[in-house]
Amino acid sequence: MKAVGIIAEYNPFHNGHAYHLQEAKRVTGADVAVVVMSGNFVQRGEPAILDKWERTKLALHNGADLMVELPVFDAVQPGHLFAQGAVQILAALGVHDLVFGSEHPDVDFMDLAKKAAAIESEGQFTDRTQTFASAYAAQLEEKTGFKLEDPNDILAFSYAKAVLASDVEMDLHPIARKQAAYHDQLIDEAQDIASASSIRLALHKGKWEKVEKVVPADTLKALKEKPTSLGFEKPFFDLLRYRLLTDTVGQLGQVYQMAEGLEYRLVGVATAKEAPQSYQSFIRAVKSKRYTFARMQRTMLYTLLNIKVDQMQAAMADSYIRLLGFTDEGQAYLSEVKRRARLPIISRVDQGLAKANLRLDYKAGLVWQLLAGQAASQEGQDLARRPIHYIKEEN
Amino acid sequence: MKAVGIIAEYNPFHNGHAYHLQEAKRVTGADVAVVVMSGNFVQRGEPAILDKWERTKLALHNGADLMVELPVFDAVQPGHLFAQGAVQILAALGVHDLVFGSEHPDVDFMDLAKKAAAIESEGQFTDRTQTFASAYAAQLEEKTGFKLEDPNDILAFSYAKAVLASDVEMDLHPIARKQAAYHDQLIDEAQDIASASSIRLALHKGKWEKVEKVVPADTLKALKEKPTSLGFEKPFFDLLRYRLLTDTVGQLGQVYQMAEGLEYRLVGVATAKEAPQSYQSFIRAVKSKRYTFARMQRTMLYTLLNIKVDQMQAAMADSYIRLLGFTDEGQAYLSEVKRRARLPIISRVDQGLAKANLRLDYKAGLVWQLLAGQAASQEGQDLARRPIHYIKEEN
Repeated sequence: MKAVGIIAEYNPFHNGHAYHLQEAKRVTGADVAVVVMSGNFVQRGEPAILDKWERTKLALHNGADLMVELPVFDAVQPGHLFAQGAVQILAALGVHDLVFGSEHPDVDFMDLAKKAAAIESEGQFTDRTQTFASAYAAQLEEKTGFKLEDPNDILAFSYAKAVLASDVEMDLHPIARKQAAYHDQLIDEAQDIASASSIRLALHKGKWEKVEKVVPADTLKALKEKPTSLGFEKPFFDLLRYRLLTDTVGQLGQVYQMAEGLEYRLVGVATAKEAPQSYQSFIRAVKSKRYTFARMQRTMLYTLLNIKVDQMQAAMADSYIRLLGFTDEGQAYLSEVKRRARLPIISRVDQGLAKANLRLDYKAGLVWQLLAGQAASQEGQDLARRPIHYIKEEN
Repeated sequence: MKAVGIIAEYNPFHNGHAYHLQEAKRVTGADVAVVVMSGNFVQRGEPAILDKWERTKLALHNGADLMVELPVFDAVQPGHLFAQGAVQILAALGVHDLVFGSEHPDVDFMDLAKKAAAIESEGQFTDRTQTFASAYAAQLEEKTGFKLEDPNDILAFSYAKAVLASDVEMDLHPIARKQAAYHDQLIDEAQDIASASSIRLALHKGKWEKVEKVVPADTLKALKEKPTSLGFEKPFFDLLRYRLLTDTVGQLGQVYQMAEGLEYRLVGVATAKEAPQSYQSFIRAVKSKRYTFARMQRTMLYTLLNIKVDQMQAAMADSYIRLLGFTDEGQAYLSEVKRRARLPIISRVDQGLAKANLRLDYKAGLVWQLLAGQAASQEGQDLARRPIHYIKEEN
């Protein structure tokens, strides 16, 4: 069987995602779509709008065949690490074709990545701050004539670099995104496709009439009936403040990505007489020009999850394939590849795994549920949970 | 000027406390009543019903002359350490007379403590668990004929032992408590005095008509208008669960009083499928026979405040006299004794102190306010706060 790989967040799953799944299979002639998806927290350091199981269901109902989790230590990372983690997992599952959206689908991203590698070997581009990112793009444009500035292009470039840097064989298939641009904040009334961020914005404003046009019916149902992260900002900030007020700066200093004395600034701002009263204003108050907003949000998430540098490094060096769900076709594909899978396949998390490899994802799931105010007696996100087996209904 | 010392929690300040202040001055012929009072958390590991400033005001309005804080590292401790900390502070302020309530005011507690010391030098009574406490009391009764079982007697005995164990000179004056027994849970309709615990119970049930009979008018006003800890149980448990779910057992194991692998049981119960849904039921689920309920509550508070063994030990070895408030007479007394005070007197907490000696009280204040949902921009509990100077109105 031939598989096509997709890297996604599905935050939430919308019509554009369904179209993308369909196209991915069409352009590659694949039998199954294998999706590696962020778990309960997404790349920008925010809680996913629906938990990973709900998002898995929606993807399976709408074209995905095999869903695996991008572990939190790969998912909540800058683009290049996010891409590396995702590519590694797809490759480990025997996937050799990757389809992704791009603003410039005609660009040969692999070629671009090779030229970039040459530039990097000359210069100093290890710094990942905003300023350096711009300088990097400028130099790349000078050498290649291509301006790397659109968000999907940047991700596509990261995938190419990840493939290049590893020993995996993976063909890249950029496809045009249908209608909605990544950063579009407004839902165009005439379209049935909108960006996930515009959908989240509409949800925050309670504009259901806009949302219902651009998501499948079952996404709409899940958003209305299941716990969502729409109300998470306050409890998130409450817990974060609690940690900042009670941990020592020594403890906070061990958090992953806590650099340049940031822990002192965090505590200073949190205990100031005129301390910010919302998470967004807090981030703005602690952020400096050297950090992107997303990086600061990720660092705050690591702080909330109390993920230390050493734990992060150990986890990243010990990855796995966590099954979230499959269709019959996805299951058949899995049977075909599992003996030669290059990472351990985990279909069920027990106490042992929850304390070892899986501990960061396990913790992320516990905190997502805590933020949702879900009773601990409800089914958890990980322990004893089995992958979803979606059996398609006959038409 | 002659001072009489009182050790109190004023949780909340009630008519019995006003009577006790009056009697303390009368029986000792003292000019001023010096009170060392628990701060924002009390001996049983619970948040005080009103913050330390409100309780200070009420005490000053009703007979106290000089209010100092019993630091959290002394206040939230088993009786013998609570007594040692309080006696040390009073003695450091030149107080040589201690008045306290007792069920048996005719007993010579100093003599009892001396006889107990002889018993202890023979036996093994360093264990402080419930079982040992009973065995200890039985042996003491055998030797002295006095059954140490009533709560105020036990505290009185602790004061005597604390005086005996230190080099302070302090005369003990047990006085009979007026009407209400310590553990009385019901407010007698005919009385104007009730126990603090019965008052808290009435407050939890919203029975204001019972409360108003047994507290001064200004206590009633404060309870109605100021932030109280009546709604703290849920946020306390939410934050505690968050910490248990995110800290490693290694981190939890460093918490003061976390013994015998308790950290594993705490995490196990907190993450269990049928995890307790309230703080009270959680405590019952983790408690073993070897621990009193109060000890378990204290350990949970240390966990919430993230107080580690080494921090606790350092703090206890470096005590201080934290001024909360005074009347003119109290201020005059303070002027008289301050040069020979045997501990540093702190009237204003700056950033330096908040990071050094005062850090545990500072943290306790921040968490009390966090539980109260108070905006951080409100006046804090410590930084830059000056002692209350209460000027009595002329009658």
